[in-house]
Amino acid sequence: MVSMNNTNNNPNNYSNSLPSDVRTLIRKGDITCQTSGMCSGYAQANLVVLPKEDAFDFLLFATRNPRSCPLLEVTMPGDRMLTEIAKDADIATDLPRYRIYEKGVLIAEPTDVSDYWRDDLVSFLIGCSFSFEGEMLSADIPVRHIEEGRNVPMYKTNIPCKSAGRFHGNMVVSMRPIPYDLVSKAVLVTGDMPRVHGAPVHIGYPEQIGISSIDRPDFGESVTIRDNEVPVFWPCGVTPQSVVMDSKPDFCITHSPGHMFITDVKNVNLKY
Amino acid sequence: MVSMNNTNNNPNNYSNSLPSDVRTLIRKGDITCQTSGMCSGYAQANLVVLPKEDAFDFLLFATRNPRSCPLLEVTMPGDRMLTEIAKDADIATDLPRYRIYEKGVLIAEPTDVSDYWRDDLVSFLIGCSFSFEGEMLSADIPVRHIEEGRNVPMYKTNIPCKSAGRFHGNMVVSMRPIPYDLVSKAVLVTGDMPRVHGAPVHIGYPEQIGISSIDRPDFGESVTIRDNEVPVFWPCGVTPQSVVMDSKPDFCITHSPGHMFITDVKNVNLKY
Repeated sequence: MVSMNNTNNNPNNYSNSLPSDVRTLIRKGDITCQTSGMCSGYAQANLVVLPKEDAFDFLLFATRNPRSCPLLEVTMPGDRMLTEIAKDADIATDLPRYRIYEKGVLIAEPTDVSDYWRDDLVSFLIGCSFSFEGEMLSADIPVRHIEEGRNVPMYKTNIPCKSAGRFHGNMVVSMRPIPYDLVSKAVLVTGDMPRVHGAPVHIGYPEQIGISSIDRPDFGESVTIRDNEVPVFWPCGVTPQSVVMDSKPDFCITHSPGHMFITDVKNVNLKY
Repeated sequence: MVSMNNTNNNPNNYSNSLPSDVRTLIRKGDITCQTSGMCSGYAQANLVVLPKEDAFDFLLFATRNPRSCPLLEVTMPGDRMLTEIAKDADIATDLPRYRIYEKGVLIAEPTDVSDYWRDDLVSFLIGCSFSFEGEMLSADIPVRHIEEGRNVPMYKTNIPCKSAGRFHGNMVVSMRPIPYDLVSKAVLVTGDMPRVHGAPVHIGYPEQIGISSIDRPDFGESVTIRDNEVPVFWPCGVTPQSVVMDSKPDFCITHSPGHMFITDVKNVNLKY
């Protein structure tokens, strides 16, 4: 049961809501919690906001690394309103929580970045694996971290991204344990959705991609891997954030982990 | 039969050559002809080169219009050597013929642009429908303009591209007549290759997309449409050139029509 004073900030209460309704509540400050599970069937997005001087390099980085940085929308400098993936959506107010970085140092974690906005800022909305998890569940492929009510486990790897100007670094992956007899099915179901990371980048043998301890993820939480299951690794939308943080740009805004932008785009439409 | 003095400039003589060998001959000035049919199985690419000041807008335009502008590689400013789709390839010498534009006006059509090169130039290599035509032929789908030895017919449409900064305009499409019973197969075969334009944008009814006379293409040459066939339209790599010319940037280099960059990437690898 949900206690009354927690109603607004339980994502499960918004699983059947429309994205525009939830964004309105977020904009008013009535929702400040994580968005996992909200607006079932609709895509959510990672956010990276950078000054124009870094925007070409970062756009090129994303173009060169589409598996980990699939772009859903990029704005012109200074534009707060989105035009493609959501209607009447203000990037500075419509995410439940943001992170502000100066030269790579986290300086604030506000629920609204209007006061930080500048005319030279370019916003990058990047696909999120929440989208393909819905497709996996529809296809009767288990998603362990959802079963266990945890954040997905994520790991730094030794897989280099292609660099672009100041941006370089290794891929971050998310891991889901998959029963041996469903691995090919999981490849095909997620491979059908390249705009939200697509097929796995690695199957089994975590040490081959530089993961020394599967029980100790670098981000998120550990999940149970059963005897009949193999760890399967997908390119993760944390990659661009990790790369941006390492490169220490003068100024950067991102979403706070798990506090995503909820789009008007149905997951099924990301297949085409 | 090919006359001796034409040997170097008959594309059919290079259908089984390796891309690196043909690029060497192009760089030496020994090949200056169109590249259609050269290096069978390998992808060819459209070229747009713009100054850094226009590069973010154009990269964003391509990102927003991936069907007509699928990016195969983008360079950092000033880089002449490619790093992703070809080895030891110099963008300023390794296409058989270029076009130089100043403020939208064609000023030269040289076989080498070394003398025009500048440290602020960014090169965009864009996927080309030559790639999916090979897949169509392999799947026993006819490609009429190849049968008839003509350039593919291309048309301006009323389908708007998504604009980005100074770059805006309508999509250009290529047309191939397809027998009614093979239309779905043609959709599936080409839809499998989104990095080289992917599935058709329109099937039949040319007037619906603003084409008034199917016999009079805006670019390329007219081809025969038989009684049992429907005209099928694909997004065309001429779109970005058309859009760039309309926007009249101070300086721009493109390939000369049909004189493409031959990559080291096999078409089959553009599926994944």
